[in-house]
Amino acid sequence: MHGHLEQIESPMDVRRLGLDELEELADEIRSALVTCVGTIGGHLASNLGFVEATIALHYVFNTPTDQLVFDVSHQCYAHKMLTGRAASYTDPSQYGVCSGFTNPDESEHDLFRAGHTSQGISLACGLAKARDLLGKHNNVVAVIGDGSLSGGEAFEGLDNAAVVGTNLIVVLNDNEMSIAPNSGGIYEHLAELRRTGGAAQENLFRAMGLDYRYVEDGNDVRALVRAFAQVKDIDHPVVVHIHTRKGKGCERAEQNPEATHFVAAASAIAPTTQTYQELTRAVLDNKMRRDPSVIVVNAGAPSGVGLTPEFRAACGNQFFDTGITEQHAVAFCAGMAKGGAKPVFMVMATFAQRAFDQFIQELGLNHSPVTVLVFGAGFYDIDATHAGTFDIVMTGNVPGLTCLAPATREEYVDMLEWSIDQRERPVVIRVPERMIEGGAGVFDPDHPGRWHVAQAGSRIAFLSIGATCELARSASELLSKKDGVHATLVEALNYSSFDEALLDELLERHEVVVTLEPGILCGGFGEKVARYYGKTSMRVMCYGGKKEFLDRVPTEEFFKIYHFTDEDIVADIEALELGTWHR
Amino acid sequence: MHGHLEQIESPMDVRRLGLDELEELADEIRSALVTCVGTIGGHLASNLGFVEATIALHYVFNTPTDQLVFDVSHQCYAHKMLTGRAASYTDPSQYGVCSGFTNPDESEHDLFRAGHTSQGISLACGLAKARDLLGKHNNVVAVIGDGSLSGGEAFEGLDNAAVVGTNLIVVLNDNEMSIAPNSGGIYEHLAELRRTGGAAQENLFRAMGLDYRYVEDGNDVRALVRAFAQVKDIDHPVVVHIHTRKGKGCERAEQNPEATHFVAAASAIAPTTQTYQELTRAVLDNKMRRDPSVIVVNAGAPSGVGLTPEFRAACGNQFFDTGITEQHAVAFCAGMAKGGAKPVFMVMATFAQRAFDQFIQELGLNHSPVTVLVFGAGFYDIDATHAGTFDIVMTGNVPGLTCLAPATREEYVDMLEWSIDQRERPVVIRVPERMIEGGAGVFDPDHPGRWHVAQAGSRIAFLSIGATCELARSASELLSKKDGVHATLVEALNYSSFDEALLDELLERHEVVVTLEPGILCGGFGEKVARYYGKTSMRVMCYGGKKEFLDRVPTEEFFKIYHFTDEDIVADIEALELGTWHR
Repeated sequence: MHGHLEQIESPMDVRRLGLDELEELADEIRSALVTCVGTIGGHLASNLGFVEATIALHYVFNTPTDQLVFDVSHQCYAHKMLTGRAASYTDPSQYGVCSGFTNPDESEHDLFRAGHTSQGISLACGLAKARDLLGKHNNVVAVIGDGSLSGGEAFEGLDNAAVVGTNLIVVLNDNEMSIAPNSGGIYEHLAELRRTGGAAQENLFRAMGLDYRYVEDGNDVRALVRAFAQVKDIDHPVVVHIHTRKGKGCERAEQNPEATHFVAAASAIAPTTQTYQELTRAVLDNKMRRDPSVIVVNAGAPSGVGLTPEFRAACGNQFFDTGITEQHAVAFCAGMAKGGAKPVFMVMATFAQRAFDQFIQELGLNHSPVTVLVFGAGFYDIDATHAGTFDIVMTGNVPGLTCLAPATREEYVDMLEWSIDQRERPVVIRVPERMIEGGAGVFDPDHPGRWHVAQAGSRIAFLSIGATCELARSASELLSKKDGVHATLVEALNYSSFDEALLDELLERHEVVVTLEPGILCGGFGEKVARYYGKTSMRVMCYGGKKEFLDRVPTEEFFKIYHFTDEDIVADIEALELGTWHR
Repeated sequence: MHGHLEQIESPMDVRRLGLDELEELADEIRSALVTCVGTIGGHLASNLGFVEATIALHYVFNTPTDQLVFDVSHQCYAHKMLTGRAASYTDPSQYGVCSGFTNPDESEHDLFRAGHTSQGISLACGLAKARDLLGKHNNVVAVIGDGSLSGGEAFEGLDNAAVVGTNLIVVLNDNEMSIAPNSGGIYEHLAELRRTGGAAQENLFRAMGLDYRYVEDGNDVRALVRAFAQVKDIDHPVVVHIHTRKGKGCERAEQNPEATHFVAAASAIAPTTQTYQELTRAVLDNKMRRDPSVIVVNAGAPSGVGLTPEFRAACGNQFFDTGITEQHAVAFCAGMAKGGAKPVFMVMATFAQRAFDQFIQELGLNHSPVTVLVFGAGFYDIDATHAGTFDIVMTGNVPGLTCLAPATREEYVDMLEWSIDQRERPVVIRVPERMIEGGAGVFDPDHPGRWHVAQAGSRIAFLSIGATCELARSASELLSKKDGVHATLVEALNYSSFDEALLDELLERHEVVVTLEPGILCGGFGEKVARYYGKTSMRVMCYGGKKEFLDRVPTEEFFKIYHFTDEDIVADIEALELGTWHR
């Protein structure tokens, strides 16, 4: 079956094939995709739809001289196969060697690491402008999906492409889907363009000063080769709108493109315990039934936060998908809060980074009573593009935000219910990475800045954020066993402010405070504690992540590197040689 | 002259006037604007152009029941005058009582604090959605300038307005200008709409699913009243595109709308010393002449960073204004860097917040050799919406960014020249708030992470960021005089990493490290130092800003509050009672 694919070491080999062979190549790639992704997981449906277009691009253009940028790069697997990395998809022993996103460390044909959406056209504008400044003459091609087009940065890119004014080819991969179904006024427009074969009366792209072409069958490699050949070496920016089928050639992906946009590895075990996603849905469902002003908002990425199609449908007009628009989503929530509604914005930590300014201006400065639920915060074995370790930096340092870090199920529920109904302030709740039962009555809604002493002791005090309370407890037990020290355990339920009374109290019977946070230390929680105690004799040891991008590093491995284990922590404490508890 | 204006205590009084009287009212407002802004400074040209529209809005709509949102609020002065705050513009003794931006603390007719652009439509979408959820029936009106339309968030807002689907009136105030001349493909489209009286073949807004109306003379109060009355209580979103004249009615503003977009107070003294803006232009000019791949990028706000019209013109194709698009601008620079060019992005600290995710992804993760010059960072007596105190949090905690804080003229020049030419890393340079001469040879390009010991001493070490080196020196002199201590002075030239060798060295002969940073302490530089020394006996005292929004607080006042004076610092050190140097 891999007759052509296994011959392809570089895109040059694609150009040696005949058009019939390109179609056979597409079948081979598709087959490898389904088998490989079915085994180890990955973006399935989005990649399946872009196989022919990838082949046609490499047939017509000459990378890396011609420059190809994949927006978000959810559609780059076929590209990887055609640029010397096919084995990572055809040889089970090499499955997963390549990352799921474009990565210049892997190949000169990958120009950028990309994993957040809507930036591809901007990057391509930069490549085009640099080419012009340096007097070069290559083609610059940006591939962007219709879903990514909802992000404002894509619009900024289109708007600026017209100003760059020279060769810049935007391939709009319109598979009629974002991760979930599209939401936004432009999607009706794209539908009209599809209905009219690109000849609709209005044309968004022409209105922005861009040339425009349409290819109805975006999975017809011959049609694509023709279309791309026509725009090759063009002297001005052009949008080539191709109509593709998400999940093409795989029945379950075609039938359910949302569920197969990203699929988990076959070996992944379904969690048997209740997850925070499920719990959140239950709490919100209950709230929404009683109060029609409660509304759940998501920015085009519902799966990571547990907003299933069924739940979204059940919410009716109390759910709003803004498209991939974190900036707008936060401001939209601020507007709703001002108007008397009770918005709950559910977002992945990594994507929330897009809304830093809106956290400051629209939430903090305006005291907007919005609830933000941050999922995926902390250390995970994922691609560096999706790191969820910057959220404490991003939210914990903004005036006016109340940032809560529940450690347990009940703490989370209490915080969420309180937050939705209060009308005074924006609240960010950092959803824990794993479910710990208990915590009833711990969160005090009258004092949302108060921390919780889970165990009163002396000499050593652990201050933990979220589920790191478990690590604190096991380190404390080890310390007790090894050194006879009965440590204090504090859950820092709020990481945007200090429980100063508690911190001052600790000064009395403690020599060392150990902070534990699932995020980078720089700009984080522990450093604030270190500053608080800076003038005193209290020693402060901060545990968390280094300022670095963890790239698909297994959890145990970076926990080891970061001394994020009870044994390491106890050894570090012992190394301080402060007192006489050592045996 | 203030015949009508002085009678107006609320918008209800506007509605009592006849149409002829509205025109007289416009004259009165305009006259007050010119006099008041001419005296105390403020946004002149943008407000002058929107006088008639403001009157017409308040004549037709019924705020605060009807809800009016001003995007960025550079055009809200007339609104303030008509909502009970006229005296702040007509009575010299009350000049400046009102802030220059909408502010709910001042009036129920101001819904949001706003000072960054392109968020107004999103906020209005939220108001409209909340209204619908709560079963209310008021109008929601968003006012947005054509300049703000370049920001992607505005596009996200328009795209979502179509989804909200109910009453939402977007007044597009098209004065053919951003702060500076517009840049972007949509501006040719707006020009076409103006040329055709709104009847151009393409229509961006209709393409996005919105209704559309056009008013050619946006300074004709009668035409505006008619147009607004027609859309009042409309049951779907509509864009009312009005063509206004920026600076209308004031000759110098009409002649030079960029220079008068914001004007300084008449009493402001022109700086006689060379400024960093001037110095930067000189360095860049020299670089660009020798190297055609050097390119200066700005995101629609050139005045704050010293990119004068003359300089921009002289740069030719080595200057690019991306419109008000910080996200795109950073990605655009990353693209240019990848393509071999040498981009220098000049941006105000407060606006850079929009690009936090791009700092992480496009710069840090991709190691893009881009130079970012951050102006306006630190403590200034400005509106809270424009606080420049979050930049160290935003850039100093991102992996892969090299963040430099020159203290002097020569350090700045050396860093800038090095940064532009190096090809390894993204560099952020925090432009100091005032010019200090000297520093030749201090910055070591081979070791950009190294700090500079300006004075070797013992017991107390000051670590200063940027121009706070002066405060460190004066505190050190006071300490010497009062307590006989000869302190060490360190310029922390790099706030993204530690000079660990130096920090370790300080442990030997020092008991206290004092950090000084012109930004908020939370998430900043001092906390990192406190963490570094957390396990040791070194005392660390951090000076900087509280986590709060300073709102037009005079510099001396918050320096006092933050103990940012030599006397306070020395008193704090003495209060530690560490040693025996006290007399």
